[in-house]
Amino acid sequence: MFDKTVYLDNAASTRLDERVLEAMKPYFFDTYAVATSEFGYSMGIESKEGLERSRKVIASALGGDANEIVFTSGSTESSNMAIKGVLSALKGKKDDHLIVSRLEDFDVLNTAKMLEKQGYKVDFIDVDSEGVLDLEMLKAAITPQTALVSIQYANQEIGTVQDIKAIADICKEKEVLLHTDATHSFTRLPLDVSQIPVDLVTVSAHTIHGPRGVGALYIREGTPINKWMDGGFQEFDLRAGIENIPGAVGFATAVELVTPEENEQLKAMRDRIIERVQSEISHVTLNGSATSRLPQNANLTFHYVEGESITLHLDMMGFAVSTGSACFSRSLEASHVILGIGGDHERAHGSLRFSFGRFNTMEDADAIIDALKEVVENLRAISPLSADD
Amino acid sequence: MFDKTVYLDNAASTRLDERVLEAMKPYFFDTYAVATSEFGYSMGIESKEGLERSRKVIASALGGDANEIVFTSGSTESSNMAIKGVLSALKGKKDDHLIVSRLEDFDVLNTAKMLEKQGYKVDFIDVDSEGVLDLEMLKAAITPQTALVSIQYANQEIGTVQDIKAIADICKEKEVLLHTDATHSFTRLPLDVSQIPVDLVTVSAHTIHGPRGVGALYIREGTPINKWMDGGFQEFDLRAGIENIPGAVGFATAVELVTPEENEQLKAMRDRIIERVQSEISHVTLNGSATSRLPQNANLTFHYVEGESITLHLDMMGFAVSTGSACFSRSLEASHVILGIGGDHERAHGSLRFSFGRFNTMEDADAIIDALKEVVENLRAISPLSADD
Repeated sequence: MFDKTVYLDNAASTRLDERVLEAMKPYFFDTYAVATSEFGYSMGIESKEGLERSRKVIASALGGDANEIVFTSGSTESSNMAIKGVLSALKGKKDDHLIVSRLEDFDVLNTAKMLEKQGYKVDFIDVDSEGVLDLEMLKAAITPQTALVSIQYANQEIGTVQDIKAIADICKEKEVLLHTDATHSFTRLPLDVSQIPVDLVTVSAHTIHGPRGVGALYIREGTPINKWMDGGFQEFDLRAGIENIPGAVGFATAVELVTPEENEQLKAMRDRIIERVQSEISHVTLNGSATSRLPQNANLTFHYVEGESITLHLDMMGFAVSTGSACFSRSLEASHVILGIGGDHERAHGSLRFSFGRFNTMEDADAIIDALKEVVENLRAISPLSADD
Repeated sequence: MFDKTVYLDNAASTRLDERVLEAMKPYFFDTYAVATSEFGYSMGIESKEGLERSRKVIASALGGDANEIVFTSGSTESSNMAIKGVLSALKGKKDDHLIVSRLEDFDVLNTAKMLEKQGYKVDFIDVDSEGVLDLEMLKAAITPQTALVSIQYANQEIGTVQDIKAIADICKEKEVLLHTDATHSFTRLPLDVSQIPVDLVTVSAHTIHGPRGVGALYIREGTPINKWMDGGFQEFDLRAGIENIPGAVGFATAVELVTPEENEQLKAMRDRIIERVQSEISHVTLNGSATSRLPQNANLTFHYVEGESITLHLDMMGFAVSTGSACFSRSLEASHVILGIGGDHERAHGSLRFSFGRFNTMEDADAIIDALKEVVENLRAISPLSADD
């Protein structure tokens, strides 16, 4: 029943690539042993090799070493581990202060809010109307008690990309550790930890046509961090649990399948949507930065009409888009991201997020604009919010 | 190169069943949306339905309700969440005392040890020479400050099954919450939470030919527990992170594929191994209970010879078995389980763990005994430890 649906929302990047599944299969059916060990038997060693090859691929995509990569169950775990693990390791030293941005995804934002409830001091740094972090406010917020700064590399919803080099340089100068949630930018935008002094990086497989339930945390060698998931001695004794080797292999394969040409193609679809919507539909606001933006993201507010209504109509026409972030699309609550860039509830509720993946085409982009024009026009004609009232 | 290897260790149960992968495929390639929501579009609702159907299957296998099941990344996360989540929820009430058994797998054991380092009071309850928990010691250990008792249902290494009903009745009478790690018994032995008053149950997919990286935690309605993985509002706002829907569907399918006949077949292989080894090889000790035992587990110590040597020789002959637990097979450290039932280092190092899965046959069981007789005889002939010295 969904054969004809065109996904231009976060699902666009979550469809597994068949080649990823093919790469995982040997680890499901042939080399399926638990990754034992020098002391184990042959298949255990083969399994371990598959895991370690995958670790090298992830490390290499970030410019780090394989022994700086810990596999996790996804971004959320990676960010929990990064923040809680560092605060725990620095306990009694400089343990009472955490800095995050107002636009963080929930993995970082709600971890910070929970820690604040537990007695930690947390500062939430403002962003400007395009979602760009206020670097002066960041500088001023860092104190000798700051254990960690956690600022996303790119926003999940409005696509704004931060100047991570400038942020990392500030943290380095102030001798404070920096974590960045790079879930949505990984492989889409360069982040080379050998050039940029970030200490911890959250990445995930599901945003690049890899398997769900697999992520990783880059941890620069020497970073003080305690184990968060207790149990066995896996992952350099930093993350317990039987290794998800098929998942790690799938993640590595997904990374290897991303090409610069593909990223250019995503960018071209993004730009076409933004340009056509702005020139062909009235009363539209682009959310996020026009210049520093994820290749696969467009986010636009259609004024005098509700995003949810557009979504439902587009769904009936075979197009899937989202209002707000993936998490917010579960509720009708206004997006903290749109509110964070100074938008009001009307702007938040009228916003649509477009995301593009490998399986989208320029024809998809054009077709959805044609559909959008019709839907927005019809809805505005019956809307009590209409600009023409 | 492994075509001819017969796996009779923990890997025996970790080979994915092809039918599980078939069930997961639609969620990789067709219904791959993020599980949004009543407010989302069609495919998001379809995804959500796949997730909720899977939740019902897991709940039903435990005799619980679907809203008492939270999906996780595996047993380790489930047990971390159960123990840390309950202690956190009871903080300031009765928060300083945790009770576990000495034979717990690392997910519970090392979580307990970490909490002890952080200032919690932890009691480790002894077991007898067969690995059966000392119920009187448990009763005596419970105090008004006890927040949680965590006792495994069956041991991962020596296969001993605890009298979980008696343990649950003690906890209920003393009004203390009970968590059980049922990773190795789930679907292999009955555990009906509508009959047995256990409050939290850890289960996993990878032990029953399901996917790696997927588990669940049963949480009885009304149990005080805080969220452990912070972030989005998934899983009844108890466990954040984009849902691994293909994984959940695979887990449910794996549960549905287990039959009583299969469990009888596993038991028959287990009994054949134990009987033939004991009657055909001298100086052998059965580890664990002869009567209360996992259907898929046999564990035997071959005295005057090292388990690692047997493992290596069997590997060359095409048989994969383990010494100690999966985790211990990474190191030459003696198993805490064998030591916990009063064994010494010699007994621990001479122990072999056999586990059986769906793809093993009685011919495998017979063939490994024939191989074992030869290997043990040859090794004893050259061993400095020989009984005949």
